[in-house]
Amino acid sequence: MIAIGERINGMFTDVKKAILEKDASIIHDLARRQTEAGAKFLDCNVGTAASDQAGAMRGGGGEIQNAGQTPIAGDSQKFDVVKAGVEACDGPMMINSVSGDPEKLRPYITYALEKDASLVALTMDRRGVPQDVNTRVEIAATIVTTAMEMGYSTDKLYIDPIIIPVNVAQDQPTKLVEVIQQIRMLADPPPHITIGLSNVSQGTGKRSLINRIFLVMAASVGLDSAIVDVLDTELMDAWITAEMLLNKQIYSDSFLKAGRLV
Amino acid sequence: MIAIGERINGMFTDVKKAILEKDASIIHDLARRQTEAGAKFLDCNVGTAASDQAGAMRGGGGEIQNAGQTPIAGDSQKFDVVKAGVEACDGPMMINSVSGDPEKLRPYITYALEKDASLVALTMDRRGVPQDVNTRVEIAATIVTTAMEMGYSTDKLYIDPIIIPVNVAQDQPTKLVEVIQQIRMLADPPPHITIGLSNVSQGTGKRSLINRIFLVMAASVGLDSAIVDVLDTELMDAWITAEMLLNKQIYSDSFLKAGRLV
Repeated sequence: MIAIGERINGMFTDVKKAILEKDASIIHDLARRQTEAGAKFLDCNVGTAASDQAGAMRGGGGEIQNAGQTPIAGDSQKFDVVKAGVEACDGPMMINSVSGDPEKLRPYITYALEKDASLVALTMDRRGVPQDVNTRVEIAATIVTTAMEMGYSTDKLYIDPIIIPVNVAQDQPTKLVEVIQQIRMLADPPPHITIGLSNVSQGTGKRSLINRIFLVMAASVGLDSAIVDVLDTELMDAWITAEMLLNKQIYSDSFLKAGRLV
Repeated sequence: MIAIGERINGMFTDVKKAILEKDASIIHDLARRQTEAGAKFLDCNVGTAASDQAGAMRGGGGEIQNAGQTPIAGDSQKFDVVKAGVEACDGPMMINSVSGDPEKLRPYITYALEKDASLVALTMDRRGVPQDVNTRVEIAATIVTTAMEMGYSTDKLYIDPIIIPVNVAQDQPTKLVEVIQQIRMLADPPPHITIGLSNVSQGTGKRSLINRIFLVMAASVGLDSAIVDVLDTELMDAWITAEMLLNKQIYSDSFLKAGRLV
């Protein structure tokens, strides 16, 4: 399981403050705590607070790297902002995210190849964000084919089939489960599949409960990554238990602790 | 979701005491609390405490019926003990359980037809309890075929594919998920599928967590019933949330409360 810690995001008040006041301690603390909780990447989204987003991303990426060994996931829709995050870091990192439209995708893959970075590609294109199974899988197939043609390994490729909130369209979680199963069959080895988990419960009650139950359902059919609140202990416990029951992590009496270390 | 409340079982100290001292209040209380928690059947297993098991089952079944409208699941490997439970009750009830061996199964189906009772049949036969996928599905197919030949509706038939503890054989939960998917395809409409959930965590730590995560995984692929501790609030919350995400129960802000009433 590849947990991407969602917490370093300018939409949170403390992170917004850290960006505006250039306060490294908040970022250091969040990087350390998320790593201890089991994050394998640390999402870094500077939001719209900074007047110089690329500068803020460069600073944030550098601080996260200073805080430890966990690679960042540079999170922006602007290519120059993502590049600033990549340039600030040595070693592995992730670009989060790009549209599945081949024209937009290709320059990102070229850059990811050059920097040996992982890449999250969304099942959306010029037509928008599809809500049906077939169009999502079709776009995922285009993403996989484009990556293969360019010599980009599926081991670095993460496809995000975009979860819609359950209270907006209650058939969406089941559809996403079908999409995940079909994306798994597009290549051997398959690409990683990731989601921005908390979107499933946007606007609902019992958000943490809905998040973790949907994560277990999606993990059961092959989701191996997600952008989540890794500081939500019950969420991480649920995910680790699912991986143990799926025989992806060895059972021991301390499996919950062990699952945060692998 | 069809929750079968596991709590009225002679292996629990309070129930054992109630049986030995013929104390109806304990049974009444457990029947009422389990019904409020969402049980659709109340398992009744008198265990080995009573010298007259059939008599204890007759008394227990009668007390459960007195306590409310929730039908009992008469739980014994002895046919005369099960019959005593059935005879004590009017209206719907369940027989839990019988081997999938056709010779043992047929008299139970004849009796279930006569009494209009539901029946749990296990994927085991003279060869024992299989741990592989194919033999379980093969026995399930024999159960379904036998039921159909005898005119017994799959709507009353519950197949229990027998879960083995995860710390005994860690590949078993995944195998059970495969078995459930395949049993679903044996008939249209498919038989119900149920499990004695808590067996998955026998001898492990974090039992309640493991139970509820496995229940979500199994429910995701078609398990629609389970013998569970309905008084475990987190377990029932997880199950109801899974059913809501699977679009089997309508989302509302009070979906957890609503899920216990349907």
